[in-house]
Amino acid sequence: MTEPAKPRRGPGRPRQDEADEGPGTQERIRLAAREVFAERGYDKTSVRGVAKVAGVDPALVHHYFGSKDDLFAAAIEVTMEPALVVPAIVGEGPEGIGERLARYFLGIWENPVSRAPLLAVIRSALTHEAAAAVLRRLVLRRVLERVAADLDVPDPTFRAELAASHMIGIALLRYVVQVEPLASADPEDIVVLVAPTLQRYLTEE
Amino acid sequence: MTEPAKPRRGPGRPRQDEADEGPGTQERIRLAAREVFAERGYDKTSVRGVAKVAGVDPALVHHYFGSKDDLFAAAIEVTMEPALVVPAIVGEGPEGIGERLARYFLGIWENPVSRAPLLAVIRSALTHEAAAAVLRRLVLRRVLERVAADLDVPDPTFRAELAASHMIGIALLRYVVQVEPLASADPEDIVVLVAPTLQRYLTEE
Repeated sequence: MTEPAKPRRGPGRPRQDEADEGPGTQERIRLAAREVFAERGYDKTSVRGVAKVAGVDPALVHHYFGSKDDLFAAAIEVTMEPALVVPAIVGEGPEGIGERLARYFLGIWENPVSRAPLLAVIRSALTHEAAAAVLRRLVLRRVLERVAADLDVPDPTFRAELAASHMIGIALLRYVVQVEPLASADPEDIVVLVAPTLQRYLTEE
Repeated sequence: MTEPAKPRRGPGRPRQDEADEGPGTQERIRLAAREVFAERGYDKTSVRGVAKVAGVDPALVHHYFGSKDDLFAAAIEVTMEPALVVPAIVGEGPEGIGERLARYFLGIWENPVSRAPLLAVIRSALTHEAAAAVLRRLVLRRVLERVAADLDVPDPTFRAELAASHMIGIALLRYVVQVEPLASADPEDIVVLVAPTLQRYLTEE
């Protein structure tokens, strides 16, 4: 971990400064946004709060990310970066795609580091229309349509959404509501049953 | 609609009173609980607020339903009453069960009267552990296990949960996040694709 730069207190657009510029700073703000949204939820997150955790001036956050919703979009992007690997999984071809996707998705959720911000995103989208709109745009444009582009089925985006709906529903019952036996089931037992479903949605007419 | 009884203001256990006793009053309190939880969410709902909407003394609500969580359980029961029909659907036998379930479930969500309280339940469970615990107990004991009892597959409760997870995920993406084309799809187009999945989970080894 690098030491964050001291926050500046002055108002207005920040001075050019090596410590506060460049992709490193933007990445730090994105990671701070993910952390703050995950910990405090959508309501209690502010541009100022994210700036503080990132160790930068709030004006700099505004400069790079605009509004709170843009910041939420950035937090989702960081959270869903693993999901952007999904097109690569799809790109490997139709054979075994259902199994690869199911295992990959459960892997992200089994990892507490990615689980917390994913939960925060889902909670925010369920309780705030602005957050739902951001998720809708990102999920649809950045992931589902890219997945769909590689599919050779009718209505590929619709098919990708059905597959996504199943995986999100499993995450919800397993990690949030924690119904048994699903909550304690071996991930591989879930993969065995769910893989053929995803396989059918993504490859069969 | 019957005229609600005037709220009483006195503290303590309410007097015996024809208007405030019996299953009619309990049902009125349940319906009021559903309405208040759906409108105000879990946080802002109180026993007092439900009593006011039901037109009864708060002490009577306490007498019949105990705590706020018991009241939430009652609200879920009223909301999920249609879900209690599910065992009947399962009881009709394995042939076509996937299609009957998918069509029935989407029907409940397509109806705005049942959709609002269902959404409120899901939102509350996602944001409050107490609400999740109530949902877990009810979903697991009252619905999933009754469905599972009629299934002739290994791990029937696990299978029923996988089917439920898919339907809940569809509800989430279609009605809450509203991703397209899923949000505007003809319910029958969803049934056609999802029915074989549910059929497989609930009937095939």
